[in-house]
Amino acid sequence: MLTPSQTAYVPFVSVENMMRLVLHIGIEKMLTELAAEIESDFARWPLFDKTARVASHSDIGVIELMPTSDGETYGFKYVNGHPSNTKQGLQTVTAFGLLASVATGYPLMLSEMTILTALRTAATSAMAAKWLAPNGASVMAMIGNGAQAEFQALAFKAICGIREVRLYDIDPLATEKCANNLKDQGLAVIRCTSAEEAIMGAQIITTCTADKQYATILSDNMVGTGVHINAVGGDCPGKTELHRDILLRSGIFVEYPPQTRIEGEIQQLDPDHPVTELWQVINGTAEGRSDARQITLFDSVGFAIEDFSALRYVYSRLKGTGLFQNLDMIADPDDPRDLFGMILRAGQA
Amino acid sequence: MLTPSQTAYVPFVSVENMMRLVLHIGIEKMLTELAAEIESDFARWPLFDKTARVASHSDIGVIELMPTSDGETYGFKYVNGHPSNTKQGLQTVTAFGLLASVATGYPLMLSEMTILTALRTAATSAMAAKWLAPNGASVMAMIGNGAQAEFQALAFKAICGIREVRLYDIDPLATEKCANNLKDQGLAVIRCTSAEEAIMGAQIITTCTADKQYATILSDNMVGTGVHINAVGGDCPGKTELHRDILLRSGIFVEYPPQTRIEGEIQQLDPDHPVTELWQVINGTAEGRSDARQITLFDSVGFAIEDFSALRYVYSRLKGTGLFQNLDMIADPDDPRDLFGMILRAGQA
Repeated sequence: MLTPSQTAYVPFVSVENMMRLVLHIGIEKMLTELAAEIESDFARWPLFDKTARVASHSDIGVIELMPTSDGETYGFKYVNGHPSNTKQGLQTVTAFGLLASVATGYPLMLSEMTILTALRTAATSAMAAKWLAPNGASVMAMIGNGAQAEFQALAFKAICGIREVRLYDIDPLATEKCANNLKDQGLAVIRCTSAEEAIMGAQIITTCTADKQYATILSDNMVGTGVHINAVGGDCPGKTELHRDILLRSGIFVEYPPQTRIEGEIQQLDPDHPVTELWQVINGTAEGRSDARQITLFDSVGFAIEDFSALRYVYSRLKGTGLFQNLDMIADPDDPRDLFGMILRAGQA
Repeated sequence: MLTPSQTAYVPFVSVENMMRLVLHIGIEKMLTELAAEIESDFARWPLFDKTARVASHSDIGVIELMPTSDGETYGFKYVNGHPSNTKQGLQTVTAFGLLASVATGYPLMLSEMTILTALRTAATSAMAAKWLAPNGASVMAMIGNGAQAEFQALAFKAICGIREVRLYDIDPLATEKCANNLKDQGLAVIRCTSAEEAIMGAQIITTCTADKQYATILSDNMVGTGVHINAVGGDCPGKTELHRDILLRSGIFVEYPPQTRIEGEIQQLDPDHPVTELWQVINGTAEGRSDARQITLFDSVGFAIEDFSALRYVYSRLKGTGLFQNLDMIADPDDPRDLFGMILRAGQA
């Protein structure tokens, strides 16, 4: 066989190499740098090619492609959502993504995105809270202690200065797992036995549960004035976490309204209920928190630009680390018109 | 580092392994088997989830995602089109694709698709001609002798019994390359110096040129009664090869009308000009060639189902060949809720 030329290779970041990269950079530093990258892309939001995700639904799950482009770089993420997967010991959500050059259409990098999505989701949450949460917030309630919980806790520690996390999950084993994972991470970790206990003294409430249903993780009387709610788990049609009355009392901030109105907590509200786009708060064209008594709500569903930022960040940090494999993914004959001859010569070589 | 479990691995077919697979199976046998796979998927056409491709356009090219699903398996192709790439020694079109399980959302196989697309395009052309070309066709004109030409010639030899190919390209070097590649393949290969010479005695005319413009590769007076035209090159808005008058004299067969009316030769016609869907000819619900004097035209643009068939065919032929690498692409913690713990343990290991 002939050796492929350099343009034939696409760097691939495996799960193992992504873990190595996280450990190499340090998880809190990586979350902080990711949040900065996402924030700077939100600040130039109008530049991006924005499409709703392309979904293929079945009875038991969904497979989605989430493309975007800033005119120089193109990115997309493949992601599935299959709640019943856990019964077979499989992940509910798996993901991978690709960056490509808009100028040539050639792929630049392929990467696992299960871990990277967990990181970017937490980084986006904490970045939003930096703009919206009350001054001096230091205690966060974490309701839902599944796969996303530790990432949220460390992002809020690194980016928002949270010092205490109060954990609650309907499954005590999830709380136990989360508390154990966080025990040497420089946070005060409190195990709680009810959502009411978890929110005591918290300026920030993060909800991140997994049930695919209209659930009421927080009821209206549990939410006092001035708190910031980081609602992560309500992220697809038919899946919400907050009582509707909380939404009516809150200033609501979203990523991309056409998507959030279908997938977010605000699917419970009228389609013209006022919301603020987070990117406008960041670039100074809309107001963030109006006063110390306002309840702010970041109704997060995850948007393609966050994946784009995350992929570009990883791509920028790969050089010199060796934490990738080169995949021979692009056919690259010496004469672009001679694809067939390349096969013939491979047979002769 | 811990060893990923088996479910974390996704088989990847590199360009080199795709070439080995083609050589292992034999190119004509592979084209024949691919055509059979595509034909059987066309026969169950209504079953498929059909979406127009999701395109991201720039001034100099396009990047597209082409997803489809038959309810059991999901597939998508990434493909770019950048005509100016050849000036830098890059491919105009590169592609890769993925198969996934609809039941779990887990990827089943990642594959290069630059070579595979060339194969499936030729297999689809020849499969259509099997249904539409005049009886006993043995001579094919090949106008446009670029990357697709040899694949077309061998597919028509293997599937339609073509014995002579008559080559013409505005660039004599392309004809020379094509003729050299075909010299030991069991075909009579005639180098021609004009399109008029190429079509002499041909029952099938294949046009496969690359210029992105409204071109007239064939003018009306060049096309006699009874021939089959396999129009491969007119495949995006603003890119056609046939004079409009030819279309008006022909029975026109297409893959997916909503896509072909935008991308195919028939972009030159009224949006309600009658066309026949090829899948209906195959499953017996529409007529193919009406008589020996009819001009039949397969206005081919390439559709996601053909890529799906091709990926599934490759997947079915991989076992036992060793012609793939396992990519550690899916994060697979022992406890699906313990993604963070997996990273921690990777650091300790």
